[in-house]
Amino acid sequence: MAAALTASTLLAEHRPTLDQALEAIRTRAYWSPHPEHPKAYGEEHGSLDAAAGRAAFDALLGTRLDLGQPGTDDWVGGEVSPYGIGLGVSYPHPDLDVLLPAMRAGQRAWRDAGPEQRALVCLEILKRISARTHEFALAVMHTSGQAFLMAFQAGGPHAQDRGLEAVAYAYAEQVRTPEAAEWTKPQGKRDPLRLTKRFTPVPRGIGLVIGCNTFPTWNGYPGLFASLATGNAVLVKPHPRAVLPLALTVRTAREVLTEAGFDPNLVALAAERPGEGIAKTLATRPEIRIIDYTGSTGFGDWLETHARQAQVFTEKAGVNTVVVESTDDYRGMLANLAFSLSLYSGQMCTTPQNLLIPRDGIRTDQGPKSYDEVVADLARAVDALLGDDARANALLGAIVNPDVKARLEAAAGLGEVALASRAVTHPDFPGATVRTPVIVKLDGTKPDDRAACLSECFGPVSFAVAVDSAADALELLRRSVREKGAMTVGAYTTDAEVERAVEEVCLEEAAQLSLNLTGGVYVNQTAAFSDFHGSGGNPAANATLTDAAFVASRFRMIEVRREA
Amino acid sequence: MAAALTASTLLAEHRPTLDQALEAIRTRAYWSPHPEHPKAYGEEHGSLDAAAGRAAFDALLGTRLDLGQPGTDDWVGGEVSPYGIGLGVSYPHPDLDVLLPAMRAGQRAWRDAGPEQRALVCLEILKRISARTHEFALAVMHTSGQAFLMAFQAGGPHAQDRGLEAVAYAYAEQVRTPEAAEWTKPQGKRDPLRLTKRFTPVPRGIGLVIGCNTFPTWNGYPGLFASLATGNAVLVKPHPRAVLPLALTVRTAREVLTEAGFDPNLVALAAERPGEGIAKTLATRPEIRIIDYTGSTGFGDWLETHARQAQVFTEKAGVNTVVVESTDDYRGMLANLAFSLSLYSGQMCTTPQNLLIPRDGIRTDQGPKSYDEVVADLARAVDALLGDDARANALLGAIVNPDVKARLEAAAGLGEVALASRAVTHPDFPGATVRTPVIVKLDGTKPDDRAACLSECFGPVSFAVAVDSAADALELLRRSVREKGAMTVGAYTTDAEVERAVEEVCLEEAAQLSLNLTGGVYVNQTAAFSDFHGSGGNPAANATLTDAAFVASRFRMIEVRREA
Repeated sequence: MAAALTASTLLAEHRPTLDQALEAIRTRAYWSPHPEHPKAYGEEHGSLDAAAGRAAFDALLGTRLDLGQPGTDDWVGGEVSPYGIGLGVSYPHPDLDVLLPAMRAGQRAWRDAGPEQRALVCLEILKRISARTHEFALAVMHTSGQAFLMAFQAGGPHAQDRGLEAVAYAYAEQVRTPEAAEWTKPQGKRDPLRLTKRFTPVPRGIGLVIGCNTFPTWNGYPGLFASLATGNAVLVKPHPRAVLPLALTVRTAREVLTEAGFDPNLVALAAERPGEGIAKTLATRPEIRIIDYTGSTGFGDWLETHARQAQVFTEKAGVNTVVVESTDDYRGMLANLAFSLSLYSGQMCTTPQNLLIPRDGIRTDQGPKSYDEVVADLARAVDALLGDDARANALLGAIVNPDVKARLEAAAGLGEVALASRAVTHPDFPGATVRTPVIVKLDGTKPDDRAACLSECFGPVSFAVAVDSAADALELLRRSVREKGAMTVGAYTTDAEVERAVEEVCLEEAAQLSLNLTGGVYVNQTAAFSDFHGSGGNPAANATLTDAAFVASRFRMIEVRREA
Repeated sequence: MAAALTASTLLAEHRPTLDQALEAIRTRAYWSPHPEHPKAYGEEHGSLDAAAGRAAFDALLGTRLDLGQPGTDDWVGGEVSPYGIGLGVSYPHPDLDVLLPAMRAGQRAWRDAGPEQRALVCLEILKRISARTHEFALAVMHTSGQAFLMAFQAGGPHAQDRGLEAVAYAYAEQVRTPEAAEWTKPQGKRDPLRLTKRFTPVPRGIGLVIGCNTFPTWNGYPGLFASLATGNAVLVKPHPRAVLPLALTVRTAREVLTEAGFDPNLVALAAERPGEGIAKTLATRPEIRIIDYTGSTGFGDWLETHARQAQVFTEKAGVNTVVVESTDDYRGMLANLAFSLSLYSGQMCTTPQNLLIPRDGIRTDQGPKSYDEVVADLARAVDALLGDDARANALLGAIVNPDVKARLEAAAGLGEVALASRAVTHPDFPGATVRTPVIVKLDGTKPDDRAACLSECFGPVSFAVAVDSAADALELLRRSVREKGAMTVGAYTTDAEVERAVEEVCLEEAAQLSLNLTGGVYVNQTAAFSDFHGSGGNPAANATLTDAAFVASRFRMIEVRREA
């Protein structure tokens, strides 16, 4: 097939976007080229509108998604939506001894294309994904259980932003060294020494992306695009419950690579049979030199220990804390926290788990509030937020898997329940498991309670932990981050000294801090190009999305020098 | 003590140098602020001249080097110069449970000083080291066995260049994210969301530098300065045979830190008792979060496997190859190779080991040369270079330790000796072990010979390996790099196709390539700010000196955001 996407076409279309992304990661001001509103998509924008996206998604159901990959020895699948419908899509299962060598075949041409061309091809992939955001949104919704609007935004534009951010970092990193240099060293009275040097960024090998169930695209795109933009082939191993969004991503990438004259096998999918555990096999293959993983601490630690031939980037579990010490906007704080606890049923790696509240109460603009009052008011705020079933469904989404449901049910036994979880009926999907969050009271000085709050309890479970003082809260915060890791920390305080102290804990323990959020920004949300996701400096993750360290070791700079 | 070095003094004095270094790593043109010629030092330049440096060095001998460190439970030492004299210097042995906490005490102020101030303090340390280059040169000479001029240049200005290069990369990396950002996200008709964000680079913890015997400063400075400039405290664990150069470095760093108002314990020395193996203990301490290591593959692999709490940067062993396929400057090639094999008795991680030569001979500007002729001519070139004992001593230096001597002696048994090693008497140091290199003929198609040339034989041993063809040479080169790693690759060819093929092997296997060097630049030498040292992409090293990947993960960027 002739290359339909020429270098000059790509340059004209995407270089301005790349430049804007480069500027955004430098200033960290707000920027995104991907609209958040579902109505911003449609034929007039060169994209699928809601109806077309729905039709595209429906057409996928019950089909075999043939990506045209070499070395396919079987067709596997069996995703059942958290909303209760079986997707019935089957995907290629790889014969690795055929697929992996095939993936390497196109690497030389991809390497020789250089950083800019690779970045532009990645931007074209993202553009085509963006155009099908409505279709992807349904794929994310019916694998992660996110409510539609969240699946649309987090799985669509926000994930695309994170992918583009990784491309921008990858490009910037590769062009920090020039393509060539003339080196002339004076030698006193003798002739100077002169060398001509050429510098080429070379890939490490094949990057493996191990996807997660809850955010297949948002957590998958940074690694995928960082590896691809730095010249590596990328094999995507989705979570078995969330294959479709990444399979569509791979399909799009393969189309664009082909049209741009590159080998489509630079990006491939590895779906697995139930219980196969293909990630372990893949992670230790010598061809795999980079791994991006989001998931449990157990397997993340296993990867870091065993996949020694690879650069391993992990986002694992953590225990996120909000310190509630005082506030000058009590209602705003409660509303903000209620939303954070409820969004996607707390199934975000960034959802607060432990709310540390002094047992003597807190100062607020509404007067002093006792610990019990704060907890009761928060429970009421959650109730108010989720009292209407339609709004509850739109915020909560569905419980993603039975483990989360079991943890939610067990949590009520850990302490006094301040807010009981209730089941919500979904009008369109009677099979969906929709639950409001539970809030359990714990006493931070009791060993059992302390142990409970120092374990990650992923899902719609939060602990209102009574602590003796702000100092005790900070000590528990420090211990949580140091021992268990944290993707996010929040704090509410009007006391400048407490504020400085919580900042100091976060700087020392390397945790990202949100202070006194009372409006429409939530501790569990980060924005590409501006916020880092995780820090890479505490046990929750060994990398952050996305900084130079996330991309710099994905390629090596090789120098060829000769006398001038 | 009042801070004698104020921020503004440091800024005025060192910011221009930092800017030049930043420009040099961007253009990779030749640059160095550190003069190479011994006569460029003296009182008129604010530095020690040869006599003063000698006096300073002599005054150290037989003394206790008290660095004023806390937690010193013993005084240890016992370095014997490869030139045969005992140094008699003793150094502090640490009680780690006292020293490590003391090293953390000053980290907050060091962190709060910010990237620029840290860089400027590092530049002041380097300036003071530079002023004492004559003293350091003797310390390097009498620990590594390098001849004086090499100890002066490689241990002095070149090491200082590498330290400065690491500071420049560290600074650049930390300031890529702004200190603060205003983030305003439009919300249609509603008020925009507004956040104020602050970004602070925070250290990982304590960096551990594990020094080597042969290049204590050159290989030690990049990690030391990269960690220090990114806000970490640094503990230097020298090789027990090469403590003095790093102890002087630590002393200088502690002086400057104190004068600049910081805690001197941000940099400390950990000397060890004979056979103590303190590196293993240190490497797995939770306080140690970064490790820089140069040395054997065995211990490097151990560190990568066991020091899981730390970012581990290793330079290990490799098998360096030069492909000799054809040349249009036969004499230049022979002279260049002879020098490379002889410099510091081949005790450089970058010295060529295997010279791959077609058994049917090569084309040259002097007519065709058979394999035997090439090897014999190379042997003659080495003989000519080292025929004069004074020049031999000035080039070879001394054999650094008995292991190298034993390997040299055993090498003669591996095949036909094309050039025998001879002992050279040193006029000033009768106790020095000085040896010329041995060249042994091997046949690349014989299994035993192949095994010999695929093992690293560190020291003045080179193998002239007969291969069937250029293609065979490239296959053996590829296998050597892939399986054993390589710090350097060289090639001589006038054939454009062979040149492209050897470049391709180096790009694919991630090895740094020098082509057709016939003048005054040698395959085993790299220049800071322009050449990378190692690639980090083959088994010889997991990092390169020095690029962004070498510094980017030594700190984490922590964000504090609040509503604007």
